[in-house]
Amino acid sequence: MLALASASAGATVLRGKIIAEDIRSKVASEIRQMKESVGEVPGLAAILVGQRPVSQSYLRNKRITCEEVGMKFELTQLPENCTTEQVCNAVSYFNEDPSIHGILVQLPLPKHLDEVKILDEVCLDKDVDGFHPLNIGSLALCGKEPLFIPCTPKGCVELLLRYNVKLMGKHVVMIGRSNIVGLPLSLILQRHHATVSILDVFSSNPEKISREADILIVAAGVPNLVRSSWLKPGVVVVDVGTNPIKDPSEKYGYRLTGDVCYEEATTIASAISPVPGGVGPMTVAMLLLNTLESAKRTFNLT
Amino acid sequence: MLALASASAGATVLRGKIIAEDIRSKVASEIRQMKESVGEVPGLAAILVGQRPVSQSYLRNKRITCEEVGMKFELTQLPENCTTEQVCNAVSYFNEDPSIHGILVQLPLPKHLDEVKILDEVCLDKDVDGFHPLNIGSLALCGKEPLFIPCTPKGCVELLLRYNVKLMGKHVVMIGRSNIVGLPLSLILQRHHATVSILDVFSSNPEKISREADILIVAAGVPNLVRSSWLKPGVVVVDVGTNPIKDPSEKYGYRLTGDVCYEEATTIASAISPVPGGVGPMTVAMLLLNTLESAKRTFNLT
Repeated sequence: MLALASASAGATVLRGKIIAEDIRSKVASEIRQMKESVGEVPGLAAILVGQRPVSQSYLRNKRITCEEVGMKFELTQLPENCTTEQVCNAVSYFNEDPSIHGILVQLPLPKHLDEVKILDEVCLDKDVDGFHPLNIGSLALCGKEPLFIPCTPKGCVELLLRYNVKLMGKHVVMIGRSNIVGLPLSLILQRHHATVSILDVFSSNPEKISREADILIVAAGVPNLVRSSWLKPGVVVVDVGTNPIKDPSEKYGYRLTGDVCYEEATTIASAISPVPGGVGPMTVAMLLLNTLESAKRTFNLT
Repeated sequence: MLALASASAGATVLRGKIIAEDIRSKVASEIRQMKESVGEVPGLAAILVGQRPVSQSYLRNKRITCEEVGMKFELTQLPENCTTEQVCNAVSYFNEDPSIHGILVQLPLPKHLDEVKILDEVCLDKDVDGFHPLNIGSLALCGKEPLFIPCTPKGCVELLLRYNVKLMGKHVVMIGRSNIVGLPLSLILQRHHATVSILDVFSSNPEKISREADILIVAAGVPNLVRSSWLKPGVVVVDVGTNPIKDPSEKYGYRLTGDVCYEEATTIASAISPVPGGVGPMTVAMLLLNTLESAKRTFNLT
């Protein structure tokens, strides 16, 4: 278990990258055992529509990570102008493929596609992203257990827990309530008995409420939204923002920046996750865990 | 549309009883039309386990209200010591009955019964309480529409809207996060773009957060939990608490009291819902609406 630094030492950096390495090595070891015991490995399928550079970069990472841990990875690429039906067909192909245990539709999809219909097509047993309403409903309800918990929110909570950040009774302010991050994250935090405030673009005084937070989680998609004036001294900050900023000096022509002004926050917070190297690697690690879990269910290994 | 009183005039009373009367008369009129056009009326079935006086009183109200609006009402009563299987059988009997469009399992159930299993048995099309995980998940997710919205939370929001209380951008503090009130209510409020804080028994300083609320909704089940020191001047208060207090002078030996100290709150709040006569009648009105909606779907009248 990692400990937070004392205030005088500056903010502890919540190194998702290092935690994710640890998780990956455990996943790799479980996959080796699975191969020995049942002669199979977990399989993850991804569907990418269009050429969005950030999505391509995410999927490159996912492929590399899968290969490293011994997981099968398949990618179907469709052109930007494809139809909803074509994407649904790609999903249903993987629904039927017994070597695939997790299906991932890379979001965001082009605007002309029916995202709800496409995500509904993913069969519940392979919904490793955990976006199906039945999974979200089971996550919300006390006494129910979802088959899968969405990867980014699950990764944020795992990151906090690994650094021994207590959640019970703490005031967690969540900025952003998207279907894929803010909403499910608020539900997981409630399961941990945190007191959760959920802010969105309509909130009349987000700065004031944020300043009340013991833990501030930002998933707004607005670069440098959160400045030092938004932070209570000693707050723990998790920055989920991954905003691509054009930068010709970078290999793929852009770099990622968070929703939090990192340099300012690091002087006030007791802990903060960096971008990149914070939540991002945790998301991929949780995707591996969910796919592994799905395969174990298939092979009755749980 | 009703208007809130000015501060000097004391708190406006949010009279759910009067709003509910209006809704009931509209439901009655729609049921008369339905009978004329398709020769059928909506049917609501309730299952009660044991002899809990408050539950019996709720069901008496529901029966009377159904009869008043011309809705069929059937009640199955089971003894306190019945089995989960017996309750499930009662549910599945109504699942099969084509004259029943809504099924209601009166909560709380005795502790020895498997509540999750029993509620799962209610078929999705007749889940007028809206407690099925698929309904809750669809309520949570932006872009999804639940078949039914749980009655008490739906009634609270309807009460606020009828009194022209704006929700968008307002800070709503929700005390209590039960599956049947607090959780779904927090999800509905987010659909209305409110900024929602959800407190529970583990919250370290509920009084302080409550004092930040533009709208305070209390569903804790603790009589007189909220005192004047919890309230910001001008706050709108919705009291969902319905705590039975022994009172031999009352007809059934008890009276209901809320979670908010009403006398104190009425001097500080701009509006407050009373107990009884506030949220309670709205809950029953929403149950009628949900059952009517279900029947209309069955008869293709929507």
